[in-house]
Amino acid sequence: MSETLEKIVVVGLGAMGLGMARSLRRAGLPVVGVDLRAERREALGDPVHASAQEAVEGADLLILVVVNAAQVESLLFGSDGCVEGLAPGAIVMVSSTVPPSYARDLGRRLAERELLYLDAPISGGEKRAEEGSITIMASGPEAAFARARPALEAMAGHLFRFGEEAGKGSSMKLINQVLAGVNLCTAAEAMALAQRLGLDLQQVYEVITTSAANSWMFENRMPYVISGQSEPRSTVEIFVKDLGIVSDAARELRFPAALSATALQQFLAAAGLGLGERDDSTVARVYATLAGVKLPGME
Amino acid sequence: MSETLEKIVVVGLGAMGLGMARSLRRAGLPVVGVDLRAERREALGDPVHASAQEAVEGADLLILVVVNAAQVESLLFGSDGCVEGLAPGAIVMVSSTVPPSYARDLGRRLAERELLYLDAPISGGEKRAEEGSITIMASGPEAAFARARPALEAMAGHLFRFGEEAGKGSSMKLINQVLAGVNLCTAAEAMALAQRLGLDLQQVYEVITTSAANSWMFENRMPYVISGQSEPRSTVEIFVKDLGIVSDAARELRFPAALSATALQQFLAAAGLGLGERDDSTVARVYATLAGVKLPGME
Repeated sequence: MSETLEKIVVVGLGAMGLGMARSLRRAGLPVVGVDLRAERREALGDPVHASAQEAVEGADLLILVVVNAAQVESLLFGSDGCVEGLAPGAIVMVSSTVPPSYARDLGRRLAERELLYLDAPISGGEKRAEEGSITIMASGPEAAFARARPALEAMAGHLFRFGEEAGKGSSMKLINQVLAGVNLCTAAEAMALAQRLGLDLQQVYEVITTSAANSWMFENRMPYVISGQSEPRSTVEIFVKDLGIVSDAARELRFPAALSATALQQFLAAAGLGLGERDDSTVARVYATLAGVKLPGME
Repeated sequence: MSETLEKIVVVGLGAMGLGMARSLRRAGLPVVGVDLRAERREALGDPVHASAQEAVEGADLLILVVVNAAQVESLLFGSDGCVEGLAPGAIVMVSSTVPPSYARDLGRRLAERELLYLDAPISGGEKRAEEGSITIMASGPEAAFARARPALEAMAGHLFRFGEEAGKGSSMKLINQVLAGVNLCTAAEAMALAQRLGLDLQQVYEVITTSAANSWMFENRMPYVISGQSEPRSTVEIFVKDLGIVSDAARELRFPAALSATALQQFLAAAGLGLGERDDSTVARVYATLAGVKLPGME
């Protein structure tokens, strides 16, 4: 197999995958895009496929940017059966957020077929995906990093490596989501309580963002709570999924993750209130609803 | 009564009060310091008193920087009975963290005696107190702000005003402590879980501090967890107290503050493990203890 990348297939042209595929092409790399949705394929432009199974034939780097472990499993081993179309030595990079235990198992199964696995979750959002400056937190064989390097460099602003062991990349992403999810929910709890106490929310924002109480999530998301916007940048359902993975993993490890478990309940309540596809900051409305106060934008 | 400040009394020469008193003197203001502990009085230097009651006679600005509402109450109305020594028009500035409902009640009682109340909690830590650059979040009568202004400017880097109503300053401080306390506990939960997952903690620190998962508390406190230090900058007991105030206030307001309540339990557990006077970041050891893993510095 050639040492250069002759064919890269990106499956999942969503908010992140589309920008990653475009960043790869901008770097002159040969990318085939795959998505079931015609409008996402059109957004990337040829060559594209609706079927991963057809696209993947002879690829030397397959990048999965799909929603969850179930979709990864189906694409690789299920009805799509992509692993059948990959030659030994090909690289499978999974950038979906999946449980560390799933990643470890996947690493073992891919190794049996002599496929190289990059356990490579991502963060950074749509804009940075488009710019080729996302964060990739990855573990995997040295050979996979070496060969995928031009692609990784085209997509990432920060590439953090966590050794060779499958599961370590996903473990790092899990820790990231503990902090992102709970910090956001904490910001929501604080803002709803501030409203209950009759404070001016804009003034609270000014105090907190200059204080030791600040967080990236508070600073980035609370303007939505103050202005009453709920158009999603990232949805409540994303944290239902990711804090769900945290809770499952923590339970498996016999690790009582009290705050993560509590924050998950609040995101679940937001989804239960019909806010699942709204901006994740609308978790503040769970607190407001239960406390009988109105935040901006609430009926 | 004169419009200039002829006599300022600072009660409580602890980590914050000592620096505040020194900052006032550096600005040329006439300060009498009060503390029961001889070594704290010596740290400030004359004029100082052991008894607040004796010191307060004829003061036009009394600043309380004591531990909690019980001490405030005892100093003002209890055995010390400081209010008896204050003439109408004198200002009582309370910088201790107290429940908003206590602050509201105190405002009413001081107004009955024609004393001006500044509900003025502080943040920023010992170093900024020494430099005269703490944050003061205050509510109170316009006349009190006007007259106390040279003193406020000598002590504060940021002065945030929340109108005239007693309780608003303390409400803002309460929101600050929700975020500071829960963000710290979340950082602790994430780091202990990272240890359980076998990640390199220094590498986790590097990833998180460049990501949307970052918080001021994570960035500032987690180096202690990584290096295993436990010498207190601020203690576990401070958050036992402050998240206790949050939980009491939220219960009174019928506001279910799920994360604050959960974080309080973790700080209580830290105190229960004998870590009450250790650095507040040692709350991470609660998680590690319960999950059967060792963090740096643990036996």
